Amino acid sequence: MNDTFLKACRGEKTDYTPIWMMRQAGRYLPEYQKVRGSVSFLELCKRPELCVEVTLQPVDLLGMDAAILFSDILIPIEAMGAALEFHEGHGPILPDRIRSSEAIDRLNVPDPDEATGFVMETIRLLRRELKVPLIGFAGAPFTCATYLIEGGSSKTFWETKKLMYTQPEVFGSLMEKITRTTLGYLLAQARAGAQTLMLFDSWAGILAPCDFERFALPYVREIITGLQQTGLPVIYFANNGATLLDLSVTSGADVIGLDWRINIGDAVRRVGRKAVQGNLDPFALLLPREELRRRIQGILEGARDAFGHIFNLGHGIHQFTPPEQARIAVEAVHELSSRSAAA
Amino acid sequence: MNDTFLKACRGEKTDYTPIWMMRQAGRYLPEYQKVRGSVSFLELCKRPELCVEVTLQPVDLLGMDAAILFSDILIPIEAMGAALEFHEGHGPILPDRIRSSEAIDRLNVPDPDEATGFVMETIRLLRRELKVPLIGFAGAPFTCATYLIEGGSSKTFWETKKLMYTQPEVFGSLMEKITRTTLGYLLAQARAGAQTLMLFDSWAGILAPCDFERFALPYVREIITGLQQTGLPVIYFANNGATLLDLSVTSGADVIGLDWRINIGDAVRRVGRKAVQGNLDPFALLLPREELRRRIQGILEGARDAFGHIFNLGHGIHQFTPPEQARIAVEAVHELSSRSAAA
Repeated sequence: MNDTFLKACRGEKTDYTPIWMMRQAGRYLPEYQKVRGSVSFLELCKRPELCVEVTLQPVDLLGMDAAILFSDILIPIEAMGAALEFHEGHGPILPDRIRSSEAIDRLNVPDPDEATGFVMETIRLLRRELKVPLIGFAGAPFTCATYLIEGGSSKTFWETKKLMYTQPEVFGSLMEKITRTTLGYLLAQARAGAQTLMLFDSWAGILAPCDFERFALPYVREIITGLQQTGLPVIYFANNGATLLDLSVTSGADVIGLDWRINIGDAVRRVGRKAVQGNLDPFALLLPREELRRRIQGILEGARDAFGHIFNLGHGIHQFTPPEQARIAVEAVHELSSRSAAA
Repeated sequence: MNDTFLKACRGEKTDYTPIWMMRQAGRYLPEYQKVRGSVSFLELCKRPELCVEVTLQPVDLLGMDAAILFSDILIPIEAMGAALEFHEGHGPILPDRIRSSEAIDRLNVPDPDEATGFVMETIRLLRRELKVPLIGFAGAPFTCATYLIEGGSSKTFWETKKLMYTQPEVFGSLMEKITRTTLGYLLAQARAGAQTLMLFDSWAGILAPCDFERFALPYVREIITGLQQTGLPVIYFANNGATLLDLSVTSGADVIGLDWRINIGDAVRRVGRKAVQGNLDPFALLLPREELRRRIQGILEGARDAFGHIFNLGHGIHQFTPPEQARIAVEAVHELSSRSAAA
């Protein structure tokens, strides 16, 4: 069992810097495309044996130090009773557009083992196969709320902010329902065998710090507090969250995810005694080999005083990335961080 | 002549904090919609008498302390020889998709008075009418380059970064051509009578600081250095640029624009002896009156130690904003900042 990743989460000494990549089980891999060719995305998410297959691919093919459950942050949201559709080449569509107390009342807080049993089954199956730690995950409440309110992705998040600013109690009641769902869902993942839990706050970065503190962070804190009973490390990733970093540190998370926009040395100084995860620009995987290695070296050096460092991209790997470039990055992180350790 | 805005740009004492709003001449105003009803967006940009009319609207109707030339950042880009289309409900489309040396060679560095004489005419006409300072503007080179390379707006900027990372010389030659065009264009605006010049770097925020420093900032510096001969204040606004702030300060700009994602007090500490402009979340204009005033008060207090402060939104005003809310904000800024001055 390679537990380098878990050690880094806890700030323990490691022989080298562990690496995994957000969205590592995904479209850039021909092996994934092959599985995906026969089923829709949502079907794939609900077929444990296929989820296991694609989750294992990047670990086996590229040598990642952690696996992340193949799923989608909207799976538990659908289980709340919201319709969810994925169409080829588009983001998710949630046609119900939850914008009123009545619509919120119709949502339920599902039993995670019943409504999303396929996720728990995937986790149990994966734990039998994996030689690296398994990360379970969920969307953070604010991010899930934006999808429900907007009806999908958004460019401006007008409807979300309109609800937040003009009907804060209605917005709050939606956030509470999502929070209870998410906490239950992650506790069930922990019971099924997940070894680390990650909260993706993909859209937190659209909030001014004062709004993040009022409308998003309390719910993240509530979930992380509720997860303490599991004893598992928790990673909190607020995408585009450089200006939310000081607040994110107070979330209770053990590891703070960083996108590529911030200099990692600056982030480490602000984060203090927490591990960090990140933060190569996913598109920098296109750099010629030697330049890519220099870029990776720079990130490793920037993080040398971190309480713990898990190498990752600053966002999901892009579908057009040559897998060979991802392999070069994994090798470089392993080699260059071992060398640093020896120096 | 109300020169409060110009004084604030230069860090001189003012009786109150001046305010204007990005995209203040725009779709949220019924008066603008009326003018726009009879012409296409691109036509409007090229008809000086109509540009004058819509530029004046927010100054007259809402009491703004500065006017900004009604135009589009892609106007000089079209003058370089790139096809440009606007379709209702969509962003701009630049079908040529400039991604090779050959395509770049076909672009020219236009004579601004000839190719964009309608802009200079608008400026001359506006100066006869206006009782507040007139801001001229252009897109910053990196932002303009993304439109040319992607062929319009983009969600991922994959093509831009691909060119940047795999063919940096080709990317650089495009940036140089845009830089020469932009400098010439802004110098012509200064000759025509613009009293402040603003560079909009709408997409700089997609760059890691190390890439911003290499691929975007040098060209901004070159333009601002070239503008020194005009003696006009220069505003540089890197949208989503919180992590680029320390670098942006070295651009040579007199005023640093701030989006709403950063706490303005933090920004002021990092910016030092430069004026700042910002930074209310445009959607916070939806807040009930008293809450909106408190939010504005917070920004004024956060900026109290600024070298100079121009109140603005952190991004363009949204088309569905009730104009009355914008008026409340203007009044609140004037009233609350005068009161602070008295205290």
